[in-house]
Amino acid sequence: MTPRRQSRRAPVTSPAAATVFTTVLTQGPVSRVDVARRTGLSSAAVTKAARPLIEAGYLAELDSEQGGVGRPASPLEIRAEREFFLGIKITDRELVGVVTDLRAQVLLTRFHPLSSCKLDAVVDGVAAMVTELLAESKSYKQRTHCLGVTIAGDVDRESGHVRYSPFLHWRDVPLADLLAEKVDLEITVDNDVKAITVAERWFGNGIGADSFALVTLGTGIGCGLVVNGRVVTGSHGVAGEIGHIPVFGDGPLCHCGATGCVEAIASTDAIVDQARTTTGERDLTIDEVITGARMGDEALRRVFARAGVAIGRGLAAMANLVGPERIIVSGEGLDAYDLFAAEIRETFGTQAFGAAAHCELILRPLPFEEWARGAAAIAVQTLFLSATTPGAVWGQPSPTRR
Amino acid sequence: MTPRRQSRRAPVTSPAAATVFTTVLTQGPVSRVDVARRTGLSSAAVTKAARPLIEAGYLAELDSEQGGVGRPASPLEIRAEREFFLGIKITDRELVGVVTDLRAQVLLTRFHPLSSCKLDAVVDGVAAMVTELLAESKSYKQRTHCLGVTIAGDVDRESGHVRYSPFLHWRDVPLADLLAEKVDLEITVDNDVKAITVAERWFGNGIGADSFALVTLGTGIGCGLVVNGRVVTGSHGVAGEIGHIPVFGDGPLCHCGATGCVEAIASTDAIVDQARTTTGERDLTIDEVITGARMGDEALRRVFARAGVAIGRGLAAMANLVGPERIIVSGEGLDAYDLFAAEIRETFGTQAFGAAAHCELILRPLPFEEWARGAAAIAVQTLFLSATTPGAVWGQPSPTRR
Repeated sequence: MTPRRQSRRAPVTSPAAATVFTTVLTQGPVSRVDVARRTGLSSAAVTKAARPLIEAGYLAELDSEQGGVGRPASPLEIRAEREFFLGIKITDRELVGVVTDLRAQVLLTRFHPLSSCKLDAVVDGVAAMVTELLAESKSYKQRTHCLGVTIAGDVDRESGHVRYSPFLHWRDVPLADLLAEKVDLEITVDNDVKAITVAERWFGNGIGADSFALVTLGTGIGCGLVVNGRVVTGSHGVAGEIGHIPVFGDGPLCHCGATGCVEAIASTDAIVDQARTTTGERDLTIDEVITGARMGDEALRRVFARAGVAIGRGLAAMANLVGPERIIVSGEGLDAYDLFAAEIRETFGTQAFGAAAHCELILRPLPFEEWARGAAAIAVQTLFLSATTPGAVWGQPSPTRR
Repeated sequence: MTPRRQSRRAPVTSPAAATVFTTVLTQGPVSRVDVARRTGLSSAAVTKAARPLIEAGYLAELDSEQGGVGRPASPLEIRAEREFFLGIKITDRELVGVVTDLRAQVLLTRFHPLSSCKLDAVVDGVAAMVTELLAESKSYKQRTHCLGVTIAGDVDRESGHVRYSPFLHWRDVPLADLLAEKVDLEITVDNDVKAITVAERWFGNGIGADSFALVTLGTGIGCGLVVNGRVVTGSHGVAGEIGHIPVFGDGPLCHCGATGCVEAIASTDAIVDQARTTTGERDLTIDEVITGARMGDEALRRVFARAGVAIGRGLAAMANLVGPERIIVSGEGLDAYDLFAAEIRETFGTQAFGAAAHCELILRPLPFEEWARGAAAIAVQTLFLSATTPGAVWGQPSPTRR
């Protein structure tokens, strides 16, 4: 075990500093006066909170016509390259790693195949990827202090434990502790969908939305949900399970034990299963199913259409129940977008109740590096978290919180 | 139009005063020290905020062993009869009115049949009921300043407009303004389910829950939903429409235009329709359907069982998506509780995803006066609302907000 690197944390030591920092981060350049107006802090408090951040090089002042440097009217902006962040997403087949700046802009991406899902192999793989990413640039090595790691499944961010990973077949793995033995960075581990929801909320389509949902289609069907400005985590640890809304009645049995779940019809595996059953070809892959459908095979097209109906019903259930401002649908399952987008939109339109149909539906691809960017975003979050209350972990760093 | 009564509002003039008042209201008796600890206010701020409330007779000090009267350790409690509140629920058949104290405890209940759903008749009926309720006691007349009125449908609380009432066939009715011409009280109008959710949150099963749902079964199937300590109102004005989650696939057509909605299978009307179709008896009433099922008619029992399955699926969808701590199922539809409770619980257990099954399911009747009590609860709310931000309308007056 290497000695741990001296932490050189940004001087975010009070809730006011966290508020000022996140406001400039997500909305800058912005003047101190505007920061005060948007956050409800006094101008004096903003100036006081900004000073150490400027001195440490995290914030900079733009010149302003209304006043000289240091005057309240000088807009503040983030010095995005003051610190770098690593994000690594673990799947059952590969690791995807990125280096980002403070705004979670991706500067570098690496893909490493995983030879095994065994815990030791994955931990070693993550450590090797960290070494490789940091070796790319002297500044990365000097100015990187935080690593975010994400994985599908049930993850306890606080303890860094992976409670259950369905794809890697892990149970109760103290991943953050194991990584800390090999990696000399501050480590945050979280669920992958929650992490990209954070990235969307802070740096993407979720900016300014008091409530939105990010639905990911693929091997699983997941959802990050923000309501009243905060991510919904579920009183019993379960939330956002749009894949397990029963929309097909007594329909197919789901791997979760229930019937008619969205995931039992529209996950990648379910689509492949139905295509194999329909065609009698037992070795069809998802790529072949997509190609066949695109070439006009009616039976395969119907499999995708049915998946689109299931997804549309799931989205309508969410809109009718929690009324998000917008829903972003993404994930690798969206590669087949052209094969079910019409059914998703049509079903949503029919099943959305009244004004819930006004919910904006954004269907857009999610390149695999976006998942790793989500991991980096939770690493960026660690800068302010110690300065705020636990509930703020999933909070909205913007004055749109009502 | 009678001259408007001089407003004698409780001296809740700052957010701190509102916080202190609501903390004592929902958790009292409680010492100033505990109020400070639970709310994050300083002891000095608590003492300062409490003083005018004590002087105006809204709060009282209990004697305490640790100190004399006025000492910080003396527990504060609400003087519940310092002010009375009227609540009136409007249905298409009758008005239900109550007088409550500050804790929304019902002191008096009255039922008035409505001869017509016409607007004039209803406004006159509400005004007559107000007069009758206040005439019951001199103290009611002297110490009542606020009236809450609730109705099913789409209501804009801010403006007091009923945008749409399906049962009374109203559209865009400025109900608060019309009532203000006849009733000399501060008037709040809101949706009936939202109002009983407020009552549950402040004074009932919702106390201490950071998230819970109250589902009402009956002519409609509605739901008030609290997530992260706040009622979910929906970005586009629609939320909690558990009755319109599509759980039966291509199942029956719903009055909303969609298919397979919970309400298309489990509302009172849907149950009666299915019973009539099944038996061929075109004049069956809901009471006859219930009686028949209780006497063992298998076809009628299956109608209720199917409704139970639809409700159980809707509840599971909610638990999987937002993960409330508990779900309270209630409403006049629960009169037939014995005929579908088993199916509700069994279906919920099967369809809830993982730990979502730990969500507590409380099935309990909702006497009609409870609806009027909800109306009174939103009248109680008006005491603090002017002192807090608009977003706080649906907020949680307790330190459990994280």
